[in-house]
Amino acid sequence: MENSQPAKKSNNPPKIVVLRWGHRPQRDVRLTTHVALTARALCASGFILSDVEDSHIRQTVKKITVHWGGTFQFEMGTPWKQAVADWRAKDGVVVHLTAYGENIQTSNVLDRIKSYAKDVLVLVGSQKVPGEFYSSDVSDFNVGVGNQPHSECSALAVFLDRFFSGEELAKDFGGAKMRIVPSARGKKIKSDTDP
Amino acid sequence: MENSQPAKKSNNPPKIVVLRWGHRPQRDVRLTTHVALTARALCASGFILSDVEDSHIRQTVKKITVHWGGTFQFEMGTPWKQAVADWRAKDGVVVHLTAYGENIQTSNVLDRIKSYAKDVLVLVGSQKVPGEFYSSDVSDFNVGVGNQPHSECSALAVFLDRFFSGEELAKDFGGAKMRIVPSARGKKIKSDTDP
Repeated sequence: MENSQPAKKSNNPPKIVVLRWGHRPQRDVRLTTHVALTARALCASGFILSDVEDSHIRQTVKKITVHWGGTFQFEMGTPWKQAVADWRAKDGVVVHLTAYGENIQTSNVLDRIKSYAKDVLVLVGSQKVPGEFYSSDVSDFNVGVGNQPHSECSALAVFLDRFFSGEELAKDFGGAKMRIVPSARGKKIKSDTDP
Repeated sequence: MENSQPAKKSNNPPKIVVLRWGHRPQRDVRLTTHVALTARALCASGFILSDVEDSHIRQTVKKITVHWGGTFQFEMGTPWKQAVADWRAKDGVVVHLTAYGENIQTSNVLDRIKSYAKDVLVLVGSQKVPGEFYSSDVSDFNVGVGNQPHSECSALAVFLDRFFSGEELAKDFGGAKMRIVPSARGKKIKSDTDP
Protein backbone atom coordinates (compact mmCIF):
# COMPACT_ATOMS: atom_id res chain seq x y z
CA MET A 1 0.00 0.00 0.00
CA GLU A 2 2.58 2.55 1.00
CA ASN A 3 4.52 2.07 -2.23
CA SER A 4 1.48 2.37 -4.44
CA GLN A 5 0.08 5.65 -5.66
CA PRO A 6 -2.85 7.21 -3.84
CA ALA A 7 -6.04 6.37 -5.63
CA LYS A 8 -8.02 8.90 -7.57
CA LYS A 9 -10.32 10.54 -5.06
CA SER A 10 -13.98 9.72 -5.27
CA ASN A 11 -16.78 12.12 -4.44
CA ASN A 12 -17.88 10.05 -1.45
CA PRO A 13 -16.03 10.92 1.72
CA PRO A 14 -14.16 7.90 3.11
CA LYS A 15 -15.89 5.82 5.74
CA ILE A 16 -14.37 4.30 8.82
CA VAL A 17 -15.23 0.97 10.40
CA VAL A 18 -13.68 0.02 13.75
CA LEU A 19 -12.60 -3.55 14.46
CA ARG A 20 -12.19 -4.43 18.11
CA TRP A 21 -9.83 -7.34 18.63
CA GLY A 22 -9.30 -9.39 21.80
CA HIS A 23 -12.56 -8.68 23.60
CA ARG A 24 -13.12 -10.88 26.63
CA PRO A 25 -16.89 -11.03 27.20
CA GLN A 26 -17.13 -10.35 30.90
CA ARG A 27 -13.93 -8.60 31.73
CA ASP A 28 -14.00 -6.13 28.83
CA VAL A 29 -17.69 -5.45 28.47
CA ARG A 30 -17.62 -1.84 29.65
CA LEU A 31 -14.45 -0.83 27.86
CA THR A 32 -15.54 -2.41 24.61
CA THR A 33 -18.92 -0.70 24.96
CA HIS A 34 -17.11 2.63 25.37
CA VAL A 35 -15.02 1.88 22.27
CA ALA A 36 -18.16 1.06 20.27
CA LEU A 37 -20.03 4.17 21.47
CA THR A 38 -17.00 6.30 20.70
CA ALA A 39 -16.92 4.87 17.20
CA ARG A 40 -20.59 5.71 16.74
CA ALA A 41 -20.52 9.19 18.33
CA LEU A 42 -17.44 10.23 16.36
CA CYS A 43 -19.00 9.10 13.12
CA ALA A 44 -17.45 5.79 12.28
CA SER A 45 -19.94 3.91 10.12
CA GLY A 46 -19.75 0.62 11.93
CA PHE A 47 -18.13 -1.65 14.44
CA ILE A 48 -16.91 -5.23 14.22
CA LEU A 49 -16.46 -7.16 17.45
CA SER A 50 -14.13 -9.76 16.03
CA ASP A 51 -13.87 -13.45 16.91
CA VAL A 52 -16.38 -13.42 19.78
CA GLU A 53 -20.01 -12.63 20.34
CA ASP A 54 -21.35 -10.45 23.13
CA SER A 55 -25.07 -9.83 22.98
CA HIS A 56 -24.88 -7.36 25.87
CA ILE A 57 -22.76 -4.97 23.82
CA ARG A 58 -24.92 -5.42 20.74
CA GLN A 59 -28.02 -4.55 22.76
CA THR A 60 -26.45 -1.44 24.26
CA VAL A 61 -25.24 -0.15 20.91
CA LYS A 62 -28.57 -0.88 19.26
CA LYS A 63 -30.51 0.85 22.03
CA ILE A 64 -28.31 3.94 21.87
CA THR A 65 -28.63 4.09 18.08
CA VAL A 66 -32.42 3.76 18.17
CA HIS A 67 -32.69 6.55 20.76
CA TRP A 68 -30.00 8.92 19.62
CA GLY A 69 -30.19 8.45 15.87
CA GLY A 70 -28.04 7.77 12.88
CA THR A 71 -27.13 4.54 11.21
CA PHE A 72 -24.41 2.45 12.75
CA GLN A 73 -23.61 -1.07 11.67
CA PHE A 74 -22.77 -3.61 14.35
CA GLU A 75 -21.26 -6.98 13.52
CA MET A 76 -19.81 -9.60 15.82
CA GLY A 77 -18.14 -12.98 15.72
CA THR A 78 -16.34 -12.46 12.42
CA PRO A 79 -12.79 -13.83 12.55
CA TRP A 80 -10.42 -10.86 12.38
CA LYS A 81 -8.41 -12.37 9.52
CA GLN A 82 -11.54 -12.70 7.46
CA ALA A 83 -12.65 -9.15 8.25
CA VAL A 84 -9.25 -7.78 7.21
CA ALA A 85 -9.16 -9.92 4.04
CA ASP A 86 -12.67 -8.79 3.10
CA TRP A 87 -11.73 -5.16 3.67
CA ARG A 88 -8.63 -5.41 1.53
CA ALA A 89 -10.55 -7.22 -1.19
CA LYS A 90 -12.78 -4.12 -1.33
CA ASP A 91 -9.66 -1.95 -1.73
CA GLY A 92 -9.91 -0.46 1.75
CA VAL A 93 -7.04 0.76 3.89
CA VAL A 94 -6.21 -0.89 7.24
CA VAL A 95 -4.91 1.24 10.12
CA HIS A 96 -3.71 -0.35 13.35
CA LEU A 97 -3.75 1.96 16.36
CA THR A 98 -0.80 1.21 18.61
CA ALA A 99 1.47 3.21 20.89
CA TYR A 100 4.41 1.79 18.88
CA GLY A 101 3.23 3.28 15.59
CA GLU A 102 4.08 6.43 13.68
CA ASN A 103 3.13 9.40 15.82
CA ILE A 104 -0.02 11.10 14.56
CA GLN A 105 1.30 14.47 15.70
CA THR A 106 4.98 14.38 14.79
CA SER A 107 4.79 12.45 11.50
CA ASN A 108 2.73 12.94 8.34
CA VAL A 109 1.07 9.55 8.71
CA LEU A 110 -2.47 10.96 8.85
CA ASP A 111 -1.92 12.94 5.65
CA ARG A 112 -0.64 9.80 3.96
CA ILE A 113 -3.68 7.81 5.09
CA LYS A 114 -6.07 10.52 3.96
CA SER A 115 -4.33 10.93 0.62
CA TYR A 116 -5.66 7.54 -0.40
CA ALA A 117 -9.22 8.77 0.03
CA LYS A 118 -10.30 5.20 0.68
CA ASP A 119 -12.45 3.63 3.35
CA VAL A 120 -10.48 2.79 6.50
CA LEU A 121 -10.70 -0.19 8.81
CA VAL A 122 -9.26 0.81 12.19
CA LEU A 123 -7.92 -2.09 14.26
CA VAL A 124 -8.17 -1.50 18.00
CA GLY A 125 -6.71 -4.11 20.33
CA SER A 126 -7.29 -4.64 24.00
CA GLN A 127 -4.51 -6.74 25.47
CA LYS A 128 -1.36 -7.61 23.54
CA VAL A 129 -2.27 -8.06 19.90
CA PRO A 130 -0.85 -10.73 17.54
CA GLY A 131 2.49 -9.70 16.03
CA GLU A 132 0.96 -9.96 12.57
CA PHE A 133 -1.03 -6.79 13.24
CA TYR A 134 2.17 -4.79 12.75
CA SER A 135 3.05 -6.41 9.43
CA SER A 136 2.10 -5.33 5.94
CA ASP A 137 0.10 -8.54 5.64
CA VAL A 138 -2.44 -6.97 7.96
CA SER A 139 -1.94 -3.24 8.44
CA ASP A 140 -1.16 -0.57 5.89
CA PHE A 141 -0.32 1.84 8.68
CA ASN A 142 0.56 1.57 12.35
CA VAL A 143 -0.44 4.79 14.05
CA GLY A 144 0.36 6.00 17.54
CA VAL A 145 -1.86 8.57 19.19
CA GLY A 146 1.25 9.60 20.99
CA ASN A 147 3.79 6.98 22.00
CA GLN A 148 2.82 6.62 25.63
CA PRO A 149 0.62 3.83 26.94
CA HIS A 150 -2.94 4.98 27.59
CA SER A 151 -6.26 3.71 26.26
CA GLU A 152 -7.57 2.26 23.02
CA CYS A 153 -10.75 4.22 23.64
CA SER A 154 -8.88 7.52 23.81
CA ALA A 155 -6.64 6.65 20.89
CA LEU A 156 -9.67 5.90 18.73
CA ALA A 157 -11.38 9.15 19.76
CA VAL A 158 -8.40 11.32 18.85
CA PHE A 159 -7.84 9.42 15.59
CA LEU A 160 -11.47 9.91 14.52
CA ASP A 161 -11.49 13.57 15.60
CA ARG A 162 -8.40 14.27 13.54
CA PHE A 163 -9.40 12.09 10.58
CA PHE A 164 -12.72 13.89 10.26
CA SER A 165 -11.15 17.28 11.12
CA GLY A 166 -13.55 17.77 14.01
CA GLU A 167 -16.58 17.91 11.76
CA GLU A 168 -17.88 14.62 13.16
CA LEU A 169 -18.82 16.40 16.39
CA ALA A 170 -21.10 18.79 14.52
CA LYS A 171 -23.01 16.11 12.65
CA ASP A 172 -26.74 15.74 13.05
CA PHE A 173 -27.78 12.15 13.68
CA GLY A 174 -30.88 11.60 11.60
CA GLY A 175 -33.94 9.81 12.93
CA ALA A 176 -33.15 10.43 16.60
CA LYS A 177 -35.92 10.03 19.15
CA MET A 178 -34.00 12.29 21.52
CA ARG A 179 -31.60 15.13 20.84
CA ILE A 180 -29.48 17.06 23.29
CA VAL A 181 -29.72 20.82 22.99
CA PRO A 182 -26.18 21.94 23.87
CA SER A 183 -26.34 24.24 26.89
CA ALA A 184 -23.99 26.23 29.08
CA ARG A 185 -26.06 25.11 32.09
CA GLY A 186 -28.23 22.12 32.86
CA LYS A 187 -29.61 19.36 30.70
CA LYS A 188 -31.83 20.15 27.75
CA ILE A 189 -33.30 17.38 25.66
CA LYS A 190 -35.69 17.61 22.76
CA SER A 191 -37.74 14.58 21.92
CA ASP A 192 -39.04 13.92 18.42
CA THR A 193 -42.56 14.49 19.72
CA ASP A 194 -41.76 18.03 20.88
CA PRO A 195 -43.11 20.80 18.65
CA MET B 1 -16.42 33.55 35.81
CA GLU B 2 -18.09 33.97 32.47
CA ASN B 3 -18.97 37.57 33.23
CA SER B 4 -15.51 38.50 34.43
CA GLN B 5 -12.72 39.57 32.14
CA PRO B 6 -10.11 37.06 31.06
CA ALA B 7 -7.03 37.37 33.23
CA LYS B 8 -3.78 38.78 31.98
CA LYS B 9 -1.89 35.88 30.48
CA SER B 10 1.10 34.59 32.39
CA ASN B 11 4.20 33.12 30.80
CA ASN B 12 3.49 29.71 32.23
CA PRO B 13 1.23 27.63 30.03
CA PRO B 14 -1.95 26.59 31.84
CA LYS B 15 -1.98 23.23 33.52
CA ILE B 16 -4.80 20.74 33.61
CA VAL B 17 -5.75 18.43 36.45
CA VAL B 18 -8.46 15.81 35.94
CA LEU B 19 -10.95 14.99 38.68
CA ARG B 20 -12.71 11.67 38.33
CA TRP B 21 -16.03 11.60 40.16
CA GLY B 22 -18.18 8.59 40.99
CA HIS B 23 -15.59 5.85 40.79
CA ARG B 24 -16.81 2.50 42.12
CA PRO B 25 -13.72 0.58 43.21
CA GLN B 26 -14.34 -2.81 41.62
CA ARG B 27 -16.75 -2.08 38.85
CA ASP B 28 -14.92 0.93 37.43
CA VAL B 29 -11.31 -0.01 37.97
CA ARG B 30 -10.37 -0.49 34.33
CA LEU B 31 -12.26 2.49 32.98
CA THR B 32 -10.93 4.80 35.66
CA THR B 33 -7.42 3.49 34.98
CA HIS B 34 -7.89 4.33 31.31
CA VAL B 35 -9.10 7.81 32.23
CA ALA B 36 -6.05 8.34 34.46
CA LEU B 37 -3.60 7.05 31.85
CA THR B 38 -5.25 9.22 29.22
CA ALA B 39 -4.82 12.22 31.50
CA ARG B 40 -1.13 11.41 31.93
CA ALA B 41 -0.37 10.54 28.29
CA LEU B 42 -2.12 13.64 26.97
CA CYS B 43 -0.20 15.84 29.38
CA ALA B 44 -2.55 16.66 32.18
CA SER B 45 -0.43 17.40 35.24
CA GLY B 46 -2.35 15.29 37.68
CA PHE B 47 -5.37 13.24 38.56
CA ILE B 48 -7.72 13.33 41.53
CA LEU B 49 -9.77 10.24 42.26
CA SER B 50 -12.39 11.99 44.36
CA ASP B 51 -14.26 10.69 47.40
CA VAL B 52 -12.88 7.15 47.31
CA GLU B 53 -9.55 5.40 47.50
CA ASP B 54 -8.39 2.69 45.13
CA SER B 55 -4.83 1.54 45.69
CA HIS B 56 -4.93 -0.63 42.58
CA ILE B 57 -5.30 2.41 40.35
CA ARG B 58 -2.65 4.35 42.25
CA GLN B 59 -0.19 1.49 41.80
CA THR B 60 -0.87 1.19 38.09
CA VAL B 61 -0.47 4.92 37.48
CA LYS B 62 2.69 5.07 39.59
CA LYS B 63 4.22 2.09 37.81
CA ILE B 64 3.49 3.55 34.38
CA THR B 65 4.93 6.92 35.40
CA VAL B 66 8.13 5.37 36.78
CA HIS B 67 8.63 3.35 33.59
CA TRP B 68 7.50 5.78 30.96
CA GLY B 69 8.60 9.06 32.49
CA GLY B 70 7.33 12.48 33.33
CA THR B 71 5.81 13.82 36.49
CA PHE B 72 2.18 13.10 37.15
CA GLN B 73 0.47 13.81 40.42
CA PHE B 74 -1.99 11.28 41.74
CA GLU B 75 -4.34 12.06 44.60
CA MET B 76 -7.27 10.07 45.94
CA GLY B 77 -9.96 10.25 48.56
CA THR B 78 -10.38 14.03 48.48
CA PRO B 79 -14.06 15.01 48.65
CA TRP B 80 -14.98 16.53 45.30
CA LYS B 81 -16.47 19.63 46.88
CA GLN B 82 -13.25 20.31 48.67
CA ALA B 83 -11.16 19.74 45.54
CA VAL B 84 -13.35 22.18 43.59
CA ALA B 85 -13.29 24.76 46.40
CA ASP B 86 -9.50 24.49 46.66
CA TRP B 87 -9.15 24.91 42.91
CA ARG B 88 -11.34 27.97 42.83
CA ALA B 89 -9.50 29.46 45.81
CA LYS B 90 -6.35 29.28 43.67
CA ASP B 91 -8.17 31.14 40.88
CA GLY B 92 -8.43 28.11 38.62
CA VAL B 93 -11.13 27.42 36.06
CA VAL B 94 -13.44 24.40 36.38
CA VAL B 95 -14.65 22.60 33.26
CA HIS B 96 -17.25 19.83 33.44
CA LEU B 97 -17.24 17.45 30.50
CA THR B 98 -20.78 16.38 29.70
CA ALA B 99 -22.70 15.45 26.57
CA TYR B 100 -25.22 18.17 27.58
CA GLY B 101 -22.65 20.97 27.47
CA GLU B 102 -21.67 23.53 24.87
CA ASN B 103 -20.35 21.70 21.84
CA ILE B 104 -16.57 21.95 21.57
CA GLN B 105 -16.82 21.94 17.78
CA THR B 106 -19.83 24.13 17.04
CA SER B 107 -19.39 26.75 19.78
CA ASN B 108 -16.48 28.95 20.82
CA VAL B 109 -16.39 27.44 24.31
CA LEU B 110 -12.80 26.21 24.01
CA ASP B 111 -11.59 29.66 22.94
CA ARG B 112 -13.38 31.18 25.91
CA ILE B 113 -11.79 28.70 28.30
CA LYS B 114 -8.34 29.26 26.83
CA SER B 115 -8.74 33.03 26.87
CA TYR B 116 -8.51 32.93 30.66
CA ALA B 117 -5.04 31.38 30.46
CA LYS B 118 -5.63 29.82 33.85
CA ASP B 119 -5.13 26.33 35.18
CA VAL B 120 -8.10 24.08 34.49
CA LEU B 121 -9.70 21.40 36.63
CA VAL B 122 -11.59 19.01 34.35
CA LEU B 123 -14.46 17.15 36.01
CA VAL B 124 -15.12 13.74 34.51
CA GLY B 125 -18.07 11.74 35.81
CA SER B 126 -18.83 8.10 35.43
CA GLN B 127 -22.49 7.44 36.12
CA LYS B 128 -25.03 10.23 36.55
CA VAL B 129 -23.32 13.15 38.24
CA PRO B 130 -24.87 15.40 40.92
CA GLY B 131 -26.98 18.19 39.41
CA GLU B 132 -24.71 20.74 41.08
CA PHE B 133 -21.97 19.89 38.58
CA TYR B 134 -23.89 21.86 35.95
CA SER B 135 -24.30 24.97 38.09
CA SER B 136 -22.02 27.97 38.38
CA ASP B 137 -21.38 26.99 41.98
CA VAL B 138 -19.24 24.17 40.64
CA SER B 139 -18.42 24.52 36.96
CA ASP B 140 -17.37 27.56 34.98
CA PHE B 141 -18.03 25.72 31.76
CA ASN B 142 -19.99 22.66 30.72
CA VAL B 143 -18.41 21.25 27.59
CA GLY B 144 -19.70 18.55 25.28
CA VAL B 145 -17.27 16.63 23.12
CA GLY B 146 -20.14 16.31 20.76
CA ASN B 147 -23.66 15.91 22.11
CA GLN B 148 -24.00 12.18 21.71
CA PRO B 149 -23.49 9.72 24.54
CA HIS B 150 -20.12 7.95 24.36
CA SER B 151 -17.29 7.75 26.87
CA GLU B 152 -15.71 9.98 29.49
CA CYS B 153 -12.38 8.55 28.46
CA SER B 154 -12.84 9.61 24.85
CA ALA B 155 -14.27 12.97 25.81
CA LEU B 156 -11.26 13.69 27.98
CA ALA B 157 -8.84 12.64 25.23
CA VAL B 158 -10.38 14.92 22.63
CA PHE B 159 -10.63 17.80 25.11
CA LEU B 160 -6.94 17.51 26.02
CA ASP B 161 -5.87 17.10 22.40
CA ARG B 162 -7.72 20.24 21.43
CA PHE B 163 -6.78 22.23 24.53
CA PHE B 164 -3.09 21.58 23.95
CA SER B 165 -3.47 21.93 20.15
CA GLY B 166 -2.04 18.45 19.60
CA GLU B 167 1.37 19.40 21.00
CA GLU B 168 0.86 17.11 23.99
CA LEU B 169 1.40 14.10 21.73
CA ALA B 170 4.87 15.33 20.75
CA LYS B 171 6.07 15.91 24.29
CA ASP B 172 9.12 14.09 25.61
CA PHE B 173 8.49 12.56 29.02
CA GLY B 174 11.62 13.22 31.04
CA GLY B 175 13.27 10.57 33.17
CA ALA B 176 11.71 7.61 31.35
CA LYS B 177 13.25 4.18 31.81
CA MET B 178 11.71 3.10 28.53
CA ARG B 179 10.87 5.08 25.42
CA ILE B 180 9.00 3.93 22.33
CA VAL B 181 10.71 4.72 19.06
CA PRO B 182 7.75 5.40 16.74
CA SER B 183 7.85 2.96 13.84
CA ALA B 184 5.91 2.14 10.71
CA ARG B 185 6.42 -1.56 11.50
CA GLY B 186 7.00 -3.56 14.66
CA LYS B 187 7.78 -2.52 18.22
CA LYS B 188 10.90 -0.53 18.96
CA ILE B 189 11.77 0.38 22.51
CA LYS B 190 14.81 2.19 23.80
CA SER B 191 15.74 1.70 27.42
CA ASP B 192 17.65 4.31 29.39
CA THR B 193 20.60 1.92 29.54
CA ASP B 194 20.87 1.73 25.74
CA PRO B 195 23.71 3.74 24.24
